Amino acid sequence: MEKRKALEAIAKRLRIHSIKMTTKAGSGHPTTCLSMADLTACLFFDEMKYNPKDSEDLANDELVLSKGHAAPILWAAYAEAGIIPEGSLMNLRKITSTLEGHPTPRMKWVKAATGSLGQGLSVGVGMALAMKLAKSPGRVYVLMGDGECAEGAVWEAANMGSLLRLGNLCAIMDINRLGQSEATMHGHDVQAYKRKFQAFGWETIPINGHRIPEILKAFKKARQNVKPTVILAKTIKGKGISFIEDKNGWHGKPLKEEEMKRALEELSPIPSIDARKYVRKPRKMKSLKPIKKYNFRKNIYNDKTATRRAYGNALLNLAKVNEAVVALDGDVKNSTYAESFFEAFPKRAFQTYIAEQNMAGMGIGMSAKGFIPFIATFSAFLPRAHDQIRMAAYSFSNIKFCGSHSGVSIGADGPSQMGLEDLGMFRSIPGCAVLYPCDAYSTEACVESLAKYRGLSYIRTTRPATPLLYSREDKFPIGGSKIIKRSKNDKATVIAAGITVHEALKAYEELRRENISIRIIDAYSVQPIDKDNITKEVAKTGRKAVVVEDHFQNGGLGDAVAQALNGKAEIVHLAINDMPRSGKPEELLDKYGIDAEHIKSAVKKLIKR
Amino acid sequence: MEKRKALEAIAKRLRIHSIKMTTKAGSGHPTTCLSMADLTACLFFDEMKYNPKDSEDLANDELVLSKGHAAPILWAAYAEAGIIPEGSLMNLRKITSTLEGHPTPRMKWVKAATGSLGQGLSVGVGMALAMKLAKSPGRVYVLMGDGECAEGAVWEAANMGSLLRLGNLCAIMDINRLGQSEATMHGHDVQAYKRKFQAFGWETIPINGHRIPEILKAFKKARQNVKPTVILAKTIKGKGISFIEDKNGWHGKPLKEEEMKRALEELSPIPSIDARKYVRKPRKMKSLKPIKKYNFRKNIYNDKTATRRAYGNALLNLAKVNEAVVALDGDVKNSTYAESFFEAFPKRAFQTYIAEQNMAGMGIGMSAKGFIPFIATFSAFLPRAHDQIRMAAYSFSNIKFCGSHSGVSIGADGPSQMGLEDLGMFRSIPGCAVLYPCDAYSTEACVESLAKYRGLSYIRTTRPATPLLYSREDKFPIGGSKIIKRSKNDKATVIAAGITVHEALKAYEELRRENISIRIIDAYSVQPIDKDNITKEVAKTGRKAVVVEDHFQNGGLGDAVAQALNGKAEIVHLAINDMPRSGKPEELLDKYGIDAEHIKSAVKKLIKR
Repeated sequence: MEKRKALEAIAKRLRIHSIKMTTKAGSGHPTTCLSMADLTACLFFDEMKYNPKDSEDLANDELVLSKGHAAPILWAAYAEAGIIPEGSLMNLRKITSTLEGHPTPRMKWVKAATGSLGQGLSVGVGMALAMKLAKSPGRVYVLMGDGECAEGAVWEAANMGSLLRLGNLCAIMDINRLGQSEATMHGHDVQAYKRKFQAFGWETIPINGHRIPEILKAFKKARQNVKPTVILAKTIKGKGISFIEDKNGWHGKPLKEEEMKRALEELSPIPSIDARKYVRKPRKMKSLKPIKKYNFRKNIYNDKTATRRAYGNALLNLAKVNEAVVALDGDVKNSTYAESFFEAFPKRAFQTYIAEQNMAGMGIGMSAKGFIPFIATFSAFLPRAHDQIRMAAYSFSNIKFCGSHSGVSIGADGPSQMGLEDLGMFRSIPGCAVLYPCDAYSTEACVESLAKYRGLSYIRTTRPATPLLYSREDKFPIGGSKIIKRSKNDKATVIAAGITVHEALKAYEELRRENISIRIIDAYSVQPIDKDNITKEVAKTGRKAVVVEDHFQNGGLGDAVAQALNGKAEIVHLAINDMPRSGKPEELLDKYGIDAEHIKSAVKKLIKR
Repeated sequence: MEKRKALEAIAKRLRIHSIKMTTKAGSGHPTTCLSMADLTACLFFDEMKYNPKDSEDLANDELVLSKGHAAPILWAAYAEAGIIPEGSLMNLRKITSTLEGHPTPRMKWVKAATGSLGQGLSVGVGMALAMKLAKSPGRVYVLMGDGECAEGAVWEAANMGSLLRLGNLCAIMDINRLGQSEATMHGHDVQAYKRKFQAFGWETIPINGHRIPEILKAFKKARQNVKPTVILAKTIKGKGISFIEDKNGWHGKPLKEEEMKRALEELSPIPSIDARKYVRKPRKMKSLKPIKKYNFRKNIYNDKTATRRAYGNALLNLAKVNEAVVALDGDVKNSTYAESFFEAFPKRAFQTYIAEQNMAGMGIGMSAKGFIPFIATFSAFLPRAHDQIRMAAYSFSNIKFCGSHSGVSIGADGPSQMGLEDLGMFRSIPGCAVLYPCDAYSTEACVESLAKYRGLSYIRTTRPATPLLYSREDKFPIGGSKIIKRSKNDKATVIAAGITVHEALKAYEELRRENISIRIIDAYSVQPIDKDNITKEVAKTGRKAVVVEDHFQNGGLGDAVAQALNGKAEIVHLAINDMPRSGKPEELLDKYGIDAEHIKSAVKKLIKR
């Protein structure tokens, strides 16, 4: 069969599947599938090269379906390619199926979860970059909706794609004019998108997204570009079914049985074509083997050192033993101290500028290709990427986030620069490891623990230098804690982490002068919290505990400890309960009630009760 | 004195202040102040009209300092304008001063906290829109850095500024080439920014940012534009001090005493000019009086109704009594049910498209001008605006966020669409009211409570329809709770909110058949939690509590209750502990252990202990 006719036939089959699947499921977005059916047919059955037997083949081209609500047609394409059985399509959205409402990597061909719009291009940038690093010949395709291009994250990614000159990256925008609730900002004004992408340094190819020859030509042209390309495909939402074409009010609505029958009549007869024959296979390449080397040479410290500096030192030494480690930094590498890594390994270090969303999204893409991204900025600015971090969790990404300058202890820069919600943000993610070391040695050991851990994780560092408490040999496994002061007569346990460990130690000395003895636990592993040991130790100090942290009252260490102790102790929780302000670190620790003096008072009040 | 000479003299004074202040404070960003000194002089002492005696004069032009780290020169300008005493400048960054490291509205001329970069333009868009609505003749100026234009939020705001045709909005970009850690993406390539802003529909005026006549001409031209304008000012970081001009490595570093002396010598003699004479005052307008009408006519419901629908109904009726209420929605108004408001009050309703960051940022700007923004999207997508929400808290904004489609109860759309971290995100903000109603009547009452509350707040709604439990007369104050089942023999208390209240009621019926009686509390006020009543009730049921919520394990109702009960009860906490997936709502409530059956088991296990 002539290629054009074959692709038209396959597109029709994709349309039919999409309609049937969503009607069967009783929910989903058929009209958004119909607009991109011709693009999908061309992508999967002519343009992309992939080995249908191996989703991990490093030579595979990759597709990121940024408009994740079009999942049905993605599943349909996999069925036509012979990757999944056609019959499984009728399980769309069932709790027993990996063909979910929006794509997640539970279906192994999906490399990143999508469905929170405007994120796919960042993932594609990260993946295309990773493939260049890994010397893969593969290309990355990102299928975007028009509505999602209102998201700023798209433009952060566009910047980075052109700066990195990712010629192996091709975005396709399905400009079907209609958003969920009404027409999009630009409707069918393809030139508006062209102007924007051109201004952001991309090659642009406007086409009619329903004409197979135009689509194929555009892909061919894109392959020759040294810059990234966006194909601006003008399409019709609901294309192929007369009574829903280009109509508002059909977003996210499956056809009723009766409507489906009418639709299938319009599309009949079902073309009988074996699409599998049209799949183009690359020359096989083995997938990147994970480099399982995580033990690195630790530094020796002689004097008090900021944990952020120790983080930088550890990252550098880790990178020496593990080539999969890459670093991304949002124009603060001289503050997070990722800079020594940047100097030593410029090819694995990426200045992602002040664009935290794209930085996190790129991490998802790089992790999907086997790299281990260490991503750093001030902890105050990580909430900027909260939605991407959330999606990284659903993507089962192996990313290590580092937030520096945490808490009021940063001092005079003021509240906008203080990370006070970061522990809460990361703790909310099931399975996310959250470590918060208090000295240089424990920081290095924590970096090692996180490197070994395959999954999302977070390390929180502090601006000011803090005294050394541990040695180069001490281990800080995820889920552990350290008892740093213990005697037989302890009247209460103080549970601290990071900067407040040092305040607790000052309180310890002062209380000792008054013959009051306290136990101190360094709860460096905020998640998982060391429930057993904390419970055991607190039980031995009269079931009385003071938790003290440089974080807002809710979401952080206090909540972790309260859950862990679950009724087995009385807790006084010292944390930031107000909107903080500029001042000197020690003034702020005092004003917001988390310094040694406040710990001392809390202990005394607690043991009097 | 000739205007040009006067402005040059004032600019020099601003430079001198900025250097002295930061050296005195021992921290801060003098070089970033120096690059914008000429722009600032022109803005404050020729272009902007404001009444220096009244920061709330509605006729005032407004300035948003998006590059918040340039705070010292902002304070210096206020001193020169006679708004604050010159001597107070030496208190920069002190804990006793409102002249913080980055601007916050503790200093009353600051209308929105800045310092998390790339947010100011959204605030400016919201403020300019609000001033149009309030019929103010004032203009809004947004002073941006070049580095921060890598933030996607800038482009979300740029879209909205041009769509709304905000001719009263003028951005000034201080293109000083250098970021924190190295040169910015585009360095001094002014044309790169011009292309981008033009593509986003703005008027652009490239100038030399150190030539007073050029600056004044640009402002004049901008005033005549019907579209928003961006003045692209090429500047030199550190301008005016030979040894730091255009040098990398000087970001965020004050001059040492010795360096300051050299700098002041270069700038000497200090011009003696009374800048106050150059302040242009507008014709006075009273500020918008807050409309303190919040009681609206509630609807009557006959059958089960989704709380999101009741939210929409309440918002509509509230808007009828209070003209300050405006609504913003991110292209999901037919899902959040803000749509009835949009139909009834099109002039106060703003389609902000799929761009949650800008939507929140606009809210900050509108709130600063006395409006009460109700901002809605899926709760899953509110983390996209986490950083803006954080800054809204520091801006003391009066914004009501609504997150619909919360929890696994949305069903088949899958995890990307499920808000499971939203309660944690909003709970982490001190003073943020967080309400989570379970039926239509309580939803309407909650909307009324939030409208009355001046401050940041959040209401969480649910996708599926839920049975009616309350009446039109019931009150739901912030900080309250409802005991919906209570008897003398209750063996445990089940604390639920939203969808799980109904699961608790099912469990109640089933347990009753086994002669086990439970107390049920609807903890609709997640923050502040009704600590006293919950503690009292739980004490009466053997100090045993089951908390059940459709939210991730950490950060939500469970943490709130654990803190409230603080050791006074044993708690079993049922929440989402895994990465959820697609399925039917009831299947998911079961799979993730928060349905009636799991509540039943938890109660039975708990009372057996």
